[in-house]
Amino acid sequence: MGAPAGAGPVHEALAALRLVDHHCHGAVTADLTHEQFASLITEGEAWPGVSPFDSPVGVAVRRHCAPLLDLPRHAPPADYLARRAELGWQEVNRRFLTAAGAGTFCVDTGYAPHPVTSPAELGRCAGAAGCEVVRLEQIAEAVAARGVEAGEYAAVVRSAAEEAVRRPGVVAVKSVAAYRTGFALDPARPADTEVTGAAARWLAHGGRLTDPVLTRHLLWTAVDLGLPLQLHTGFGDADVRLHRADPALLTDWLHLTAGTIPVLLLHCWPYQRQAAYLAAVFEQVYLDVGLALHYTGPARSRAVLEEALEITPFRKLLYSSDAYGVAEFHHLGALSFRQGLAGLLQSRVDADELSLPDALRIAAWTGRDNARRLYGPPVSEPARDPSGRPTRKV
Amino acid sequence: MGAPAGAGPVHEALAALRLVDHHCHGAVTADLTHEQFASLITEGEAWPGVSPFDSPVGVAVRRHCAPLLDLPRHAPPADYLARRAELGWQEVNRRFLTAAGAGTFCVDTGYAPHPVTSPAELGRCAGAAGCEVVRLEQIAEAVAARGVEAGEYAAVVRSAAEEAVRRPGVVAVKSVAAYRTGFALDPARPADTEVTGAAARWLAHGGRLTDPVLTRHLLWTAVDLGLPLQLHTGFGDADVRLHRADPALLTDWLHLTAGTIPVLLLHCWPYQRQAAYLAAVFEQVYLDVGLALHYTGPARSRAVLEEALEITPFRKLLYSSDAYGVAEFHHLGALSFRQGLAGLLQSRVDADELSLPDALRIAAWTGRDNARRLYGPPVSEPARDPSGRPTRKV
Amino acid sequence: MGAPAGAGPVHEALAALRLVDHHCHGAVTADLTHEQFASLITEGEAWPGVSPFDSPVGVAVRRHCAPLLDLPRHAPPADYLARRAELGWQEVNRRFLTAAGAGTFCVDTGYAPHPVTSPAELGRCAGAAGCEVVRLEQIAEAVAARGVEAGEYAAVVRSAAEEAVRRPGVVAVKSVAAYRTGFALDPARPADTEVTGAAARWLAHGGRLTDPVLTRHLLWTAVDLGLPLQLHTGFGDADVRLHRADPALLTDWLHLTAGTIPVLLLHCWPYQRQAAYLAAVFEQVYLDVGLALHYTGPARSRAVLEEALEITPFRKLLYSSDAYGVAEFHHLGALSFRQGLAGLLQSRVDADELSLPDALRIAAWTGRDNARRLYGPPVSEPARDPSGRPTRKV
Repeated sequence: MGAPAGAGPVHEALAALRLVDHHCHGAVTADLTHEQFASLITEGEAWPGVSPFDSPVGVAVRRHCAPLLDLPRHAPPADYLARRAELGWQEVNRRFLTAAGAGTFCVDTGYAPHPVTSPAELGRCAGAAGCEVVRLEQIAEAVAARGVEAGEYAAVVRSAAEEAVRRPGVVAVKSVAAYRTGFALDPARPADTEVTGAAARWLAHGGRLTDPVLTRHLLWTAVDLGLPLQLHTGFGDADVRLHRADPALLTDWLHLTAGTIPVLLLHCWPYQRQAAYLAAVFEQVYLDVGLALHYTGPARSRAVLEEALEITPFRKLLYSSDAYGVAEFHHLGALSFRQGLAGLLQSRVDADELSLPDALRIAAWTGRDNARRLYGPPVSEPARDPSGRPTRKV
Repeated sequence: MGAPAGAGPVHEALAALRLVDHHCHGAVTADLTHEQFASLITEGEAWPGVSPFDSPVGVAVRRHCAPLLDLPRHAPPADYLARRAELGWQEVNRRFLTAAGAGTFCVDTGYAPHPVTSPAELGRCAGAAGCEVVRLEQIAEAVAARGVEAGEYAAVVRSAAEEAVRRPGVVAVKSVAAYRTGFALDPARPADTEVTGAAARWLAHGGRLTDPVLTRHLLWTAVDLGLPLQLHTGFGDADVRLHRADPALLTDWLHLTAGTIPVLLLHCWPYQRQAAYLAAVFEQVYLDVGLALHYTGPARSRAVLEEALEITPFRKLLYSSDAYGVAEFHHLGALSFRQGLAGLLQSRVDADELSLPDALRIAAWTGRDNARRLYGPPVSEPARDPSGRPTRKV
Repeated sequence: MGAPAGAGPVHEALAALRLVDHHCHGAVTADLTHEQFASLITEGEAWPGVSPFDSPVGVAVRRHCAPLLDLPRHAPPADYLARRAELGWQEVNRRFLTAAGAGTFCVDTGYAPHPVTSPAELGRCAGAAGCEVVRLEQIAEAVAARGVEAGEYAAVVRSAAEEAVRRPGVVAVKSVAAYRTGFALDPARPADTEVTGAAARWLAHGGRLTDPVLTRHLLWTAVDLGLPLQLHTGFGDADVRLHRADPALLTDWLHLTAGTIPVLLLHCWPYQRQAAYLAAVFEQVYLDVGLALHYTGPARSRAVLEEALEITPFRKLLYSSDAYGVAEFHHLGALSFRQGLAGLLQSRVDADELSLPDALRIAAWTGRDNARRLYGPPVSEPARDPSGRPTRKV
């Protein structure tokens, strides 16, 4: 609870660990107005008369990001925004992305209402590797936008997805089914005729893909692709229906897909215990508490991690920031994870509930090695530093 | 966790702050038998062979209320009840309501199976202002009781509600839809013919209003009235179906009513994180953790507040006691809030996660200013003290 | 949070208290291969390449069970398994079951895929009493396996259940409706014709009892039997659908059965707050957080108990281990309960939120006396020690 930065061998080990941030987004490649910045540090919008800095994440930005812009801790918002503008987006991104201390970023490229860094640019900016996560709904919507016959929809989506995941550096696919339909879906693979019928209806009307048959079809397409599948669960913006994004609703589908692809439950808050249950009983299920980490900040990241780890096998928790837009969040996510996990582990070591070697192993696994094991190369291979020389990410 | 009264500038500031208790009920204006008191300190009933004092709230009453009756801390229940009877209800009410340290009480007048103080009486007794919250189901049931044609139902309810909220001191309306139908309702405004049909069925059979169409109609009537709407969510008595009182179920309705009235999610426990999500993404949504505060007592109020504040913007949390019947609860709610919030904020200040000025600002906002800003006068205006002299509520 | 063993009068009292473990299973009566042991310490299965020791429960076994096998704390898994094999199952069971310090074990005899101790054997091994809990689904499935006409099904199940609960030492019945259908059931007692129709369908197809009508019928059979009913809720193996095992879904059924039998909500995690709500408002409802206790280990048992006790009347919480198979779990459950509850209570005493006599009373109630009061003899009567001499269980 409100753990300070802390000290001790676990904190030191986590501070030195080059993380794998297995799910994040690009950082904006433009200077931001105050309003744009304000909007990017909320999951809602900026509201008249209410400063977005008056929130847990706003407090965390002023506390933990201001010093990286050469400002005092807890700097006033106006000073923060002025200094940020003065430094310019390149320098701001460089400082925060470097401070994040990640060796690899796995970047979801399917959501980018702003101009943002590509995976390679994000990696370069941080002296890290940049991998890509392909969003399936974007593939399907691009197929629809290009025009396709309903009867060809499944095959074209499949080949578009196969082509997308052959791009160098792609390590996983992602679905935002949680937003589009929620998880209370028929778990079965939809029959071809169902997909064709649903595609005909969707293609006739256009808009975002929100059809439950087509959403299921994408989840099963992920199974066919064979890559790890990242699933948004729980907390997000106002588009989500939180109770339909409870990962426990996926249980039937997880039974049907057992033995196929790894499934990574992202964010999970406030359903981190439900996600932990799934990770404890299904071999293929993993979780993180990204997003919650920067939104709650270091003051509560330990509490959220404590719940996430109550029963989760230690090879099943991963780190992600889910940062989007402002590089502050790539940094805050990493900081919150390091401090929260170190506080949790060190206190167990101090209470002799855990040995120090075990604590260090758990820290390295969850911060880096579980992701490497799961995604394989290119996440687990040496990255090249910005100068082009091969370097170990350790 | 089991935080002691604590010390430090945040505790001092919160101890001195005259709270706005934005949702409570009257205190009983009669001496109570032991059985009546027992029943009033549970959300269930008094059970044979089990003392209602053998509960978290019972322990909190003996610890924090006994001294105000000149008894030692942790006094035995029998001593407590004897002394309470000896002092008489007026003196008991005066002591606890004064100790609550509220500048304003917003009193839901729609639930009063016992003889209780009016808002003005409650305020007077505490040297505070007493405002009123009008319960919509009561309005509708009074309309039905007086007799109305189904075809006139909507118009008559509407004008009865308009008349009720014109009473001096009314600052908000309230719905107990959570109890009557739960929140898994069709979110759309019901058509006139639907309302007429549902009214015809209800008026033919009588009883409490539990029809889903008429419940929706009341929620939309609140939108038309334009006043803030308080919604019971989560924990209550055995009448509630807890899972149907999860505020996340309101999401579709909140989308439809965005830009209209403020919506105050009351109590929320155990769904405080779901409520916090809504408060973070919908401009019009606010929350409190009233009820949970006195039922859990100071031993757990901080833990509940920690969850409620994980992502909640600081202008979105309010204080309420939800006290009903026994003035002990007006006091315990205030005490639990002050101690819990002070413990939370001070520990963040101590860990340098939050600056002291920010902590003091957050304390004043959540304990008083957010309610003033939201309800406007008469909550935000100077009250008159019992002697009739104008006084600042500070 | 990661509380150490701790010290103080509450810890001492709980360490000395002979618990009633009101819901557990037998311990395996055979030596186990490494794979068998691995599988028994997860709620899932042993997974290739992942040690089941790399989990919260695995860490707790190495920390708290290794010393009882004469190994150092945090012993490596290989050493642990070797020493366990060397000692043999009788000695291993004896050590852990004795260390659990229970005066009575109430043993669910309806789940035993391995050869396990009978209730009497489990008790004997620990110098304790062994009582029995009869699983209703097993009764019904045995009736079906023996062959029955659909029209006779209800009567035969009823008489088989009546016969089963007449066995000496039976103190309760249990249902795993949570696994078979979940709790979103029609709460009403099914009509005879419904039961006959459902039985005809089931008997024609065979397999496990998963029919919703027959599951309801068993819950109502429990009401007729008049014994306390234990209900699995929340966390379990992959067979459960967690969201359908939320005990809040039982509310309508609890209304209909109020005034009949006690209902014990087992495990509950992650719905311990929902269970606490039911225990607070329904006279007949009790809860425990068994299963969660050994799976989370002492590092988190206090946190789970803190949530379970936020509003729960102190006569409504019981202790269970829900241990199955490995006697380590009978020990770990007891240890986690003692340490977690002692930490919780002692910290409230230290903060002067609770008096020491109250804390000691709550410890004895929840660890032993609530179960005795509820189950009556034979739980509350003197046991005979292994030598056959009557002995007090303290």
